[in-house]
Amino acid sequence: MQAIMQNEELISLFRDNFPFWDELSQIEKETFINSSQYISFPKGTNIHNGNECTGIILIRKGSLRLYILSDEGKEITLYRLFPGEMCMLSASCVLNNITFDVFVDAEENSECIVVGGCAYAALAERNTAAKIFALETALSRFSDVMWVMQQILFMSMDKRLAIFLLDEVSKTGGDTVHLTHEQIAKYMGSAREVVTRMLKYFSSEGIVELSRGGIKLTDIKRLRSLAI
Amino acid sequence: MQAIMQNEELISLFRDNFPFWDELSQIEKETFINSSQYISFPKGTNIHNGNECTGIILIRKGSLRLYILSDEGKEITLYRLFPGEMCMLSASCVLNNITFDVFVDAEENSECIVVGGCAYAALAERNTAAKIFALETALSRFSDVMWVMQQILFMSMDKRLAIFLLDEVSKTGGDTVHLTHEQIAKYMGSAREVVTRMLKYFSSEGIVELSRGGIKLTDIKRLRSLAI
Repeated sequence: MQAIMQNEELISLFRDNFPFWDELSQIEKETFINSSQYISFPKGTNIHNGNECTGIILIRKGSLRLYILSDEGKEITLYRLFPGEMCMLSASCVLNNITFDVFVDAEENSECIVVGGCAYAALAERNTAAKIFALETALSRFSDVMWVMQQILFMSMDKRLAIFLLDEVSKTGGDTVHLTHEQIAKYMGSAREVVTRMLKYFSSEGIVELSRGGIKLTDIKRLRSLAI
Repeated sequence: MQAIMQNEELISLFRDNFPFWDELSQIEKETFINSSQYISFPKGTNIHNGNECTGIILIRKGSLRLYILSDEGKEITLYRLFPGEMCMLSASCVLNNITFDVFVDAEENSECIVVGGCAYAALAERNTAAKIFALETALSRFSDVMWVMQQILFMSMDKRLAIFLLDEVSKTGGDTVHLTHEQIAKYMGSAREVVTRMLKYFSSEGIVELSRGGIKLTDIKRLRSLAI
Protein backbone atom coordinates (compact mmCIF):
# COMPACT_ATOMS: atom_id res chain seq x y z
CA MET A 1 0.00 0.00 0.00
CA GLN A 2 1.47 3.32 -0.97
CA ALA A 3 1.94 6.02 1.59
CA ILE A 4 -0.32 8.32 -0.40
CA MET A 5 -3.24 7.27 1.75
CA GLN A 6 -3.17 7.11 5.54
CA ASN A 7 -3.72 3.67 7.02
CA GLU A 8 -6.52 4.98 9.24
CA GLU A 9 -8.33 6.33 6.20
CA LEU A 10 -7.95 3.02 4.41
CA ILE A 11 -9.15 1.02 7.41
CA SER A 12 -12.19 3.22 7.73
CA LEU A 13 -12.88 2.74 4.00
CA PHE A 14 -12.59 -1.04 4.31
CA ARG A 15 -14.82 -1.05 7.37
CA ASP A 16 -17.48 0.91 5.45
CA ASN A 17 -17.30 -1.34 2.41
CA PHE A 18 -16.65 -4.83 3.68
CA PRO A 19 -19.28 -5.87 6.25
CA PHE A 20 -17.00 -8.59 7.66
CA TRP A 21 -14.08 -6.24 8.39
CA ASP A 22 -14.50 -6.16 12.17
CA GLU A 23 -14.55 -9.97 12.31
CA LEU A 24 -11.06 -10.23 10.83
CA SER A 25 -8.01 -10.94 12.95
CA GLN A 26 -5.21 -8.37 13.11
CA ILE A 27 -3.07 -10.50 10.78
CA GLU A 28 -5.92 -10.88 8.29
CA LYS A 29 -6.45 -7.13 8.29
CA GLU A 30 -2.78 -6.52 7.66
CA THR A 31 -2.68 -9.04 4.81
CA PHE A 32 -5.75 -7.37 3.31
CA ILE A 33 -4.14 -3.93 3.55
CA ASN A 34 -0.82 -5.16 2.17
CA SER A 35 -2.50 -6.77 -0.81
CA SER A 36 -4.27 -3.51 -1.67
CA GLN A 37 -3.03 -0.76 -3.92
CA TYR A 38 -4.08 2.82 -4.27
CA ILE A 39 -4.10 3.60 -7.98
CA SER A 40 -4.93 6.71 -10.01
CA PHE A 41 -6.26 5.96 -13.47
CA PRO A 42 -6.26 8.78 -16.04
CA LYS A 43 -9.45 9.17 -18.04
CA GLY A 44 -9.62 6.54 -20.75
CA THR A 45 -7.33 3.98 -19.12
CA ASN A 46 -8.30 0.35 -19.59
CA ILE A 47 -8.26 -1.04 -16.04
CA HIS A 48 -9.49 -4.57 -16.54
CA ASN A 49 -9.14 -6.58 -19.70
CA GLY A 50 -11.22 -9.72 -20.04
CA ASN A 51 -10.80 -12.71 -17.84
CA GLU A 52 -7.55 -11.95 -16.00
CA CYS A 53 -7.75 -11.32 -12.25
CA THR A 54 -7.30 -7.61 -11.66
CA GLY A 55 -8.78 -7.74 -8.17
CA ILE A 56 -11.68 -6.03 -6.45
CA ILE A 57 -11.86 -2.39 -7.46
CA LEU A 58 -13.23 0.11 -4.95
CA ILE A 59 -13.98 3.47 -6.52
CA ARG A 60 -13.05 6.58 -4.49
CA LYS A 61 -13.20 9.27 -7.15
CA GLY A 62 -14.27 9.40 -10.78
CA SER A 63 -16.25 6.71 -12.57
CA LEU A 64 -15.63 3.39 -14.28
CA ARG A 65 -17.49 1.80 -17.15
CA LEU A 66 -18.02 -1.97 -17.49
CA TYR A 67 -18.63 -3.33 -20.96
CA ILE A 68 -18.43 -6.39 -23.16
CA LEU A 69 -16.63 -6.39 -26.46
CA SER A 70 -17.24 -8.35 -29.66
CA ASP A 71 -14.51 -9.74 -31.91
CA GLU A 72 -15.28 -6.91 -34.29
CA GLY A 73 -14.73 -4.31 -31.58
CA LYS A 74 -18.38 -3.50 -30.90
CA GLU A 75 -18.95 -2.52 -27.28
CA ILE A 76 -22.00 -2.79 -25.08
CA THR A 77 -21.98 -0.88 -21.82
CA LEU A 78 -23.31 -3.03 -18.98
CA TYR A 79 -23.21 -0.46 -16.20
CA ARG A 80 -21.13 2.26 -14.59
CA LEU A 81 -19.55 2.43 -11.15
CA PHE A 82 -19.28 5.55 -9.03
CA PRO A 83 -17.53 6.53 -5.78
CA GLY A 84 -18.49 4.20 -2.95
CA GLU A 85 -19.26 1.33 -5.33
CA MET A 86 -17.07 -1.64 -6.10
CA CYS A 87 -16.34 -3.93 -9.02
CA MET A 88 -16.32 -7.63 -8.17
CA LEU A 89 -16.50 -9.08 -11.70
CA SER A 90 -12.88 -8.02 -12.23
CA ALA A 91 -11.78 -10.50 -9.53
CA SER A 92 -12.03 -13.78 -11.42
CA CYS A 93 -9.94 -15.69 -8.90
CA VAL A 94 -12.54 -14.88 -6.25
CA LEU A 95 -15.42 -15.93 -8.53
CA ASN A 96 -14.64 -19.28 -10.11
CA ASN A 97 -17.99 -19.37 -11.81
CA ILE A 98 -17.54 -16.23 -13.86
CA THR A 99 -15.99 -17.20 -17.17
CA PHE A 100 -17.12 -14.39 -19.43
CA ASP A 101 -14.93 -11.44 -20.27
CA VAL A 102 -15.80 -7.97 -19.09
CA PHE A 103 -13.75 -4.86 -19.68
CA VAL A 104 -13.43 -1.90 -17.35
CA ASP A 105 -12.29 1.58 -18.37
CA ALA A 106 -11.88 4.76 -16.37
CA GLU A 107 -14.37 7.22 -17.83
CA GLU A 108 -12.95 10.14 -15.87
CA ASN A 109 -9.72 10.60 -14.00
CA SER A 110 -10.39 8.05 -11.27
CA GLU A 111 -8.88 7.03 -7.95
CA CYS A 112 -9.37 3.48 -6.80
CA ILE A 113 -8.27 0.97 -4.21
CA VAL A 114 -7.59 -2.39 -5.85
CA VAL A 115 -7.74 -5.31 -3.42
CA GLY A 116 -5.68 -8.29 -4.62
CA GLY A 117 -7.89 -11.11 -5.88
CA CYS A 118 -5.68 -13.94 -4.60
CA ALA A 119 -5.51 -12.48 -1.10
CA TYR A 120 -9.28 -12.05 -1.06
CA ALA A 121 -9.83 -15.57 -2.39
CA ALA A 122 -7.62 -16.99 0.38
CA LEU A 123 -9.57 -15.04 2.97
CA ALA A 124 -12.91 -16.18 1.53
CA GLU A 125 -11.79 -19.80 1.87
CA ARG A 126 -11.63 -19.36 5.63
CA ASN A 127 -14.20 -16.65 6.21
CA THR A 128 -17.73 -17.45 5.01
CA ALA A 129 -18.89 -13.84 5.47
CA ALA A 130 -16.21 -12.71 3.00
CA LYS A 131 -17.26 -15.45 0.58
CA ILE A 132 -20.97 -14.59 0.84
CA PHE A 133 -20.17 -10.91 0.36
CA ALA A 134 -18.25 -11.58 -2.86
CA LEU A 135 -21.01 -13.81 -4.27
CA GLU A 136 -23.81 -11.41 -3.37
CA THR A 137 -21.96 -8.42 -4.80
CA ALA A 138 -21.38 -10.23 -8.08
CA LEU A 139 -24.91 -11.60 -8.26
CA SER A 140 -26.44 -8.21 -7.56
CA ARG A 141 -25.20 -7.07 -10.99
CA PHE A 142 -26.73 -10.05 -12.81
CA SER A 143 -30.10 -8.28 -12.87
CA ASP A 144 -28.63 -5.00 -14.16
CA VAL A 145 -26.92 -6.83 -16.96
CA MET A 146 -30.05 -8.80 -17.85
CA TRP A 147 -32.03 -5.61 -18.02
CA VAL A 148 -29.67 -3.97 -20.52
CA MET A 149 -29.54 -7.16 -22.56
CA GLN A 150 -33.29 -7.59 -22.68
CA GLN A 151 -33.87 -4.01 -23.74
CA ILE A 152 -31.39 -4.27 -26.56
CA LEU A 153 -32.15 -7.87 -27.56
CA PHE A 154 -35.82 -7.37 -27.89
CA MET A 155 -35.05 -4.26 -29.95
CA SER A 156 -37.78 -2.44 -28.28
CA MET A 157 -37.21 0.23 -25.73
CA ASP A 158 -33.92 1.82 -26.74
CA LYS A 159 -34.98 2.08 -30.36
CA ARG A 160 -38.58 3.01 -29.62
CA LEU A 161 -37.65 5.67 -27.11
CA ALA A 162 -35.04 7.14 -29.47
CA ILE A 163 -37.67 7.37 -32.23
CA PHE A 164 -40.18 8.93 -29.86
CA LEU A 165 -37.76 11.60 -28.59
CA LEU A 166 -36.62 12.54 -32.11
CA ASP A 167 -40.21 12.74 -33.35
CA GLU A 168 -41.13 14.89 -30.40
CA VAL A 169 -38.42 17.55 -30.93
CA SER A 170 -39.04 17.60 -34.68
CA LYS A 171 -42.69 18.39 -33.89
CA THR A 172 -42.12 20.97 -31.17
CA GLY A 173 -38.78 22.44 -32.30
CA GLY A 174 -35.81 23.01 -30.00
CA ASP A 175 -33.79 20.26 -28.41
CA THR A 176 -35.84 19.50 -25.31
CA VAL A 177 -38.83 17.23 -24.73
CA HIS A 178 -41.17 18.78 -22.18
CA LEU A 179 -43.09 15.71 -21.12
CA THR A 180 -43.07 13.70 -17.92
CA HIS A 181 -41.86 10.10 -17.96
CA GLU A 182 -45.43 9.11 -17.17
CA GLN A 183 -46.72 10.92 -20.27
CA ILE A 184 -44.04 9.40 -22.49
CA ALA A 185 -44.88 5.95 -21.17
CA LYS A 186 -48.54 6.52 -21.97
CA TYR A 187 -47.81 7.68 -25.51
CA MET A 188 -45.52 4.70 -26.05
CA GLY A 189 -47.80 2.14 -24.43
CA SER A 190 -45.10 1.27 -21.94
CA ALA A 191 -44.61 1.54 -18.18
CA ARG A 192 -43.23 4.64 -16.48
CA GLU A 193 -40.53 2.57 -14.73
CA VAL A 194 -39.26 1.30 -18.08
CA VAL A 195 -39.14 4.80 -19.57
CA THR A 196 -37.39 6.23 -16.50
CA ARG A 197 -34.81 3.46 -16.49
CA MET A 198 -34.08 3.77 -20.19
CA LEU A 199 -33.82 7.57 -19.92
CA LYS A 200 -31.29 7.10 -17.09
CA TYR A 201 -29.36 4.72 -19.32
CA PHE A 202 -29.42 7.28 -22.16
CA SER A 203 -28.34 9.96 -19.71
CA SER A 204 -25.41 7.85 -18.44
CA GLU A 205 -24.40 7.37 -22.08
CA GLY A 206 -24.43 11.15 -22.62
CA ILE A 207 -27.30 10.96 -25.11
CA VAL A 208 -29.73 13.05 -23.09
CA GLU A 209 -29.62 15.35 -20.08
CA LEU A 210 -32.39 14.96 -17.53
CA SER A 211 -33.67 17.86 -15.50
CA ARG A 212 -36.91 19.14 -14.03
CA GLY A 213 -37.53 21.11 -17.17
CA GLY A 214 -37.52 18.04 -19.39
CA ILE A 215 -35.28 15.83 -21.45
CA LYS A 216 -32.61 17.64 -23.42
CA LEU A 217 -31.26 15.70 -26.39
CA THR A 218 -27.50 16.21 -26.21
CA ASP A 219 -26.34 13.68 -28.79
CA ILE A 220 -28.78 13.72 -31.69
CA LYS A 221 -26.39 11.77 -33.93
CA ARG A 222 -26.22 8.88 -31.49
CA LEU A 223 -29.97 9.01 -30.97
CA ARG A 224 -30.52 8.80 -34.72
CA SER A 225 -28.24 5.79 -34.96
CA LEU A 226 -30.33 4.09 -32.26
CA ALA A 227 -33.55 4.91 -34.11
CA ILE A 228 -32.54 3.19 -37.35
CA MET B 1 -44.34 -34.56 0.26
CA GLN B 2 -46.49 -37.01 -1.56
CA ALA B 3 -46.22 -40.73 -0.90
CA ILE B 4 -45.31 -41.31 -4.54
CA MET B 5 -41.63 -41.18 -3.64
CA GLN B 6 -40.09 -43.05 -0.74
CA ASN B 7 -38.53 -40.87 1.93
CA GLU B 8 -35.23 -42.77 1.69
CA GLU B 9 -35.08 -42.09 -2.02
CA LEU B 10 -35.76 -38.40 -1.43
CA ILE B 11 -33.17 -38.14 1.33
CA SER B 12 -30.58 -39.77 -0.88
CA LEU B 13 -31.47 -37.32 -3.66
CA PHE B 14 -31.13 -34.34 -1.31
CA ARG B 15 -27.82 -35.67 0.01
CA ASP B 16 -26.50 -35.95 -3.55
CA ASN B 17 -27.66 -32.50 -4.55
CA PHE B 18 -27.26 -30.31 -1.48
CA PRO B 19 -23.69 -30.45 -0.15
CA PHE B 20 -24.78 -29.21 3.27
CA TRP B 21 -27.41 -31.94 3.80
CA ASP B 22 -25.47 -33.95 6.40
CA GLU B 23 -24.86 -30.81 8.48
CA LEU B 24 -28.59 -30.25 8.99
CA SER B 25 -30.34 -31.17 12.23
CA GLN B 26 -33.11 -33.76 12.17
CA ILE B 27 -35.73 -31.02 12.48
CA GLU B 28 -34.18 -29.02 9.64
CA LYS B 29 -34.18 -32.10 7.43
CA GLU B 30 -37.84 -32.76 8.19
CA THR B 31 -38.79 -29.15 7.44
CA PHE B 32 -36.87 -29.37 4.17
CA ILE B 33 -38.65 -32.59 3.20
CA ASN B 34 -42.06 -31.27 4.24
CA SER B 35 -41.60 -28.12 2.17
CA SER B 36 -40.81 -30.21 -0.92
CA GLN B 37 -43.20 -31.50 -3.51
CA TYR B 38 -42.86 -34.17 -6.10
CA ILE B 39 -44.53 -32.88 -9.25
CA SER B 40 -45.02 -34.32 -12.73
CA PHE B 41 -45.20 -31.69 -15.46
CA PRO B 42 -46.65 -32.71 -18.82
CA LYS B 43 -44.67 -31.57 -21.86
CA GLY B 44 -45.35 -27.90 -22.56
CA THR B 45 -46.38 -26.92 -19.03
CA ASN B 46 -45.25 -23.50 -17.87
CA ILE B 47 -43.61 -24.21 -14.51
CA HIS B 48 -42.26 -20.82 -13.53
CA ASN B 49 -43.64 -17.52 -14.65
CA GLY B 50 -41.53 -14.43 -14.12
CA ASN B 51 -40.61 -13.14 -10.74
CA GLU B 52 -42.84 -15.18 -8.40
CA CYS B 53 -41.14 -17.65 -6.06
CA THR B 54 -41.78 -21.13 -7.40
CA GLY B 55 -38.95 -22.67 -5.38
CA ILE B 56 -35.84 -24.62 -6.25
CA ILE B 57 -36.57 -27.14 -8.99
CA LEU B 58 -34.59 -30.38 -9.03
CA ILE B 59 -35.01 -32.28 -12.28
CA ARG B 60 -35.39 -36.09 -12.02
CA LYS B 61 -36.73 -36.92 -15.47
CA GLY B 62 -37.32 -34.97 -18.67
CA SER B 63 -35.97 -31.51 -19.41
CA LEU B 64 -36.80 -27.90 -18.66
CA ARG B 65 -36.15 -24.81 -20.73
CA LEU B 66 -35.34 -21.41 -19.21
CA TYR B 67 -36.09 -18.36 -21.29
CA ILE B 68 -36.79 -14.66 -21.22
CA LEU B 69 -39.81 -13.14 -22.88
CA SER B 70 -40.36 -9.72 -24.45
CA ASP B 71 -43.58 -7.71 -24.18
CA GLU B 72 -44.27 -8.73 -27.75
CA GLY B 73 -43.96 -12.42 -26.93
CA LYS B 74 -40.50 -12.97 -28.40
CA GLU B 75 -38.57 -15.65 -26.51
CA ILE B 76 -34.87 -16.19 -26.05
CA THR B 77 -33.74 -19.53 -24.65
CA LEU B 78 -31.08 -19.04 -21.99
CA TYR B 79 -30.31 -22.69 -21.25
CA ARG B 80 -31.84 -26.10 -20.63
CA LEU B 81 -31.84 -28.23 -17.51
CA PHE B 82 -31.58 -32.02 -17.47
CA PRO B 83 -31.91 -34.78 -14.85
CA GLY B 84 -29.55 -34.20 -11.93
CA GLU B 85 -29.50 -30.42 -12.50
CA MET B 86 -31.41 -27.81 -10.58
CA CYS B 87 -33.00 -24.45 -11.20
CA MET B 88 -32.19 -21.79 -8.64
CA LEU B 89 -33.33 -18.68 -10.56
CA SER B 90 -36.95 -19.77 -9.96
CA ALA B 91 -36.48 -19.24 -6.21
CA SER B 92 -36.63 -15.46 -5.98
CA CYS B 93 -37.22 -15.45 -2.23
CA VAL B 94 -33.85 -17.20 -1.80
CA LEU B 95 -32.10 -14.74 -4.13
CA ASN B 96 -33.05 -11.20 -3.18
CA ASN B 97 -30.74 -9.77 -5.80
CA ILE B 98 -32.41 -11.40 -8.77
CA THR B 99 -35.07 -9.04 -10.04
CA PHE B 100 -35.37 -10.07 -13.67
CA ASP B 101 -38.06 -12.38 -14.94
CA VAL B 102 -37.25 -15.81 -16.26
CA PHE B 103 -39.71 -18.37 -17.49
CA VAL B 104 -39.40 -22.14 -17.19
CA ASP B 105 -41.30 -24.66 -19.31
CA ALA B 106 -41.24 -28.44 -19.33
CA GLU B 107 -39.93 -29.41 -22.76
CA GLU B 108 -40.74 -33.08 -22.26
CA ASN B 109 -42.91 -34.86 -19.74
CA SER B 110 -40.84 -34.08 -16.67
CA GLU B 111 -40.64 -35.16 -13.06
CA CYS B 112 -39.28 -32.72 -10.55
CA ILE B 113 -38.85 -32.12 -6.86
CA VAL B 114 -39.73 -28.54 -6.00
CA VAL B 115 -38.18 -27.33 -2.73
CA GLY B 116 -40.17 -24.48 -1.18
CA GLY B 117 -38.35 -21.15 -1.54
CA CYS B 118 -39.44 -19.72 1.82
CA ALA B 119 -38.30 -22.82 3.70
CA TYR B 120 -34.95 -22.70 1.92
CA ALA B 121 -34.58 -18.97 2.56
CA ALA B 122 -35.25 -19.52 6.28
CA LEU B 123 -32.63 -22.27 6.35
CA ALA B 124 -30.09 -20.11 4.48
CA GLU B 125 -30.51 -17.40 7.11
CA ARG B 126 -29.11 -19.77 9.74
CA ASN B 127 -26.89 -22.01 7.64
CA THR B 128 -24.13 -20.27 5.70
CA ALA B 129 -23.36 -23.39 3.64
CA ALA B 130 -26.95 -23.40 2.35
CA LYS B 131 -26.65 -19.70 1.57
CA ILE B 132 -23.34 -20.08 -0.25
CA PHE B 133 -24.71 -23.02 -2.22
CA ALA B 134 -27.71 -21.01 -3.45
CA LEU B 135 -25.55 -18.04 -4.46
CA GLU B 136 -22.95 -20.17 -6.24
CA THR B 137 -25.60 -22.16 -8.09
CA ALA B 138 -27.28 -18.98 -9.31
CA LEU B 139 -24.00 -17.29 -10.22
CA SER B 140 -22.77 -20.32 -12.15
CA ARG B 141 -25.48 -19.62 -14.75
CA PHE B 142 -24.51 -15.97 -15.16
CA SER B 143 -21.74 -17.00 -17.57
CA ASP B 144 -24.04 -19.25 -19.64
CA VAL B 145 -26.52 -16.45 -19.99
CA MET B 146 -23.84 -13.93 -20.93
CA TRP B 147 -22.55 -16.26 -23.60
CA VAL B 148 -25.93 -16.62 -25.30
CA MET B 149 -26.50 -12.88 -25.04
CA GLN B 150 -23.15 -11.96 -26.50
CA GLN B 151 -23.53 -14.32 -29.43
CA ILE B 152 -26.93 -12.92 -30.30
CA LEU B 153 -26.20 -9.29 -29.44
CA PHE B 154 -23.11 -9.04 -31.52
CA MET B 155 -25.11 -10.59 -34.35
CA SER B 156 -22.22 -12.65 -35.30
CA MET B 157 -22.01 -16.31 -34.60
CA ASP B 158 -25.61 -17.50 -34.80
CA LYS B 159 -26.22 -15.65 -38.03
CA ARG B 160 -22.83 -16.35 -39.54
CA LEU B 161 -22.95 -20.04 -38.73
CA ALA B 162 -26.48 -20.33 -40.14
CA ILE B 163 -25.36 -18.70 -43.38
CA PHE B 164 -22.31 -20.94 -43.58
CA LEU B 165 -24.29 -24.15 -43.04
CA LEU B 166 -26.94 -23.19 -45.61
CA ASP B 167 -24.30 -22.22 -48.18
CA GLU B 168 -22.51 -25.48 -47.59
CA VAL B 169 -25.52 -27.76 -48.23
CA SER B 170 -26.58 -25.71 -51.24
CA LYS B 171 -23.10 -26.31 -52.67
CA THR B 172 -22.80 -29.98 -51.83
CA GLY B 173 -26.47 -31.03 -52.02
CA GLY B 174 -28.19 -33.18 -49.38
CA ASP B 175 -28.94 -31.98 -45.87
CA THR B 176 -25.69 -32.73 -44.08
CA VAL B 177 -22.47 -30.77 -43.73
CA HIS B 178 -19.48 -33.13 -43.72
CA LEU B 179 -16.90 -30.89 -42.12
CA THR B 180 -15.27 -30.93 -38.69
CA HIS B 181 -15.87 -28.09 -36.27
CA GLU B 182 -12.20 -27.21 -36.72
CA GLN B 183 -12.64 -26.87 -40.49
CA ILE B 184 -15.77 -24.77 -40.14
CA ALA B 185 -13.99 -22.51 -37.68
CA LYS B 186 -11.14 -22.06 -40.15
CA TYR B 187 -13.49 -21.22 -43.03
CA MET B 188 -15.34 -18.76 -40.84
CA GLY B 189 -12.27 -17.20 -39.26
CA SER B 190 -13.49 -18.16 -35.83
CA ALA B 191 -12.35 -20.45 -33.01
CA ARG B 192 -13.27 -24.13 -32.85
CA GLU B 193 -14.66 -23.72 -29.31
CA VAL B 194 -17.05 -21.04 -30.51
CA VAL B 195 -18.26 -23.15 -33.43
CA THR B 196 -18.70 -26.23 -31.21
CA ARG B 197 -20.61 -24.29 -28.59
CA MET B 198 -22.90 -22.63 -31.13
CA LEU B 199 -23.54 -25.96 -32.87
CA LYS B 200 -24.53 -27.44 -29.50
CA TYR B 201 -26.87 -24.52 -28.99
CA PHE B 202 -28.39 -25.10 -32.48
CA SER B 203 -28.68 -28.79 -31.65
CA SER B 204 -30.46 -28.11 -28.35
CA GLU B 205 -32.87 -25.89 -30.30
CA GLY B 206 -33.57 -28.75 -32.73
CA ILE B 207 -32.07 -26.86 -35.67
CA VAL B 208 -29.31 -29.37 -36.38
CA GLU B 209 -28.43 -32.91 -35.39
CA LEU B 210 -24.82 -33.59 -34.50
CA SER B 211 -23.19 -36.93 -35.16
CA ARG B 212 -19.84 -38.36 -36.18
CA GLY B 213 -20.92 -38.24 -39.80
CA GLY B 214 -21.44 -34.49 -39.71
CA ILE B 215 -24.03 -31.83 -39.07
CA LYS B 216 -27.52 -32.64 -40.31
CA LEU B 217 -29.73 -29.61 -40.87
CA THR B 218 -33.07 -30.62 -39.38
CA ASP B 219 -34.86 -27.27 -39.39
CA ILE B 220 -33.94 -25.43 -42.58
CA LYS B 221 -36.75 -22.93 -42.13
CA ARG B 222 -35.47 -21.85 -38.74
CA LEU B 223 -31.92 -21.74 -40.04
CA ARG B 224 -33.00 -19.48 -42.90
CA SER B 225 -34.72 -17.14 -40.47
CA LEU B 226 -31.46 -16.91 -38.50
CA ALA B 227 -29.50 -16.17 -41.66
CA ILE B 228 -31.55 -13.14 -42.66
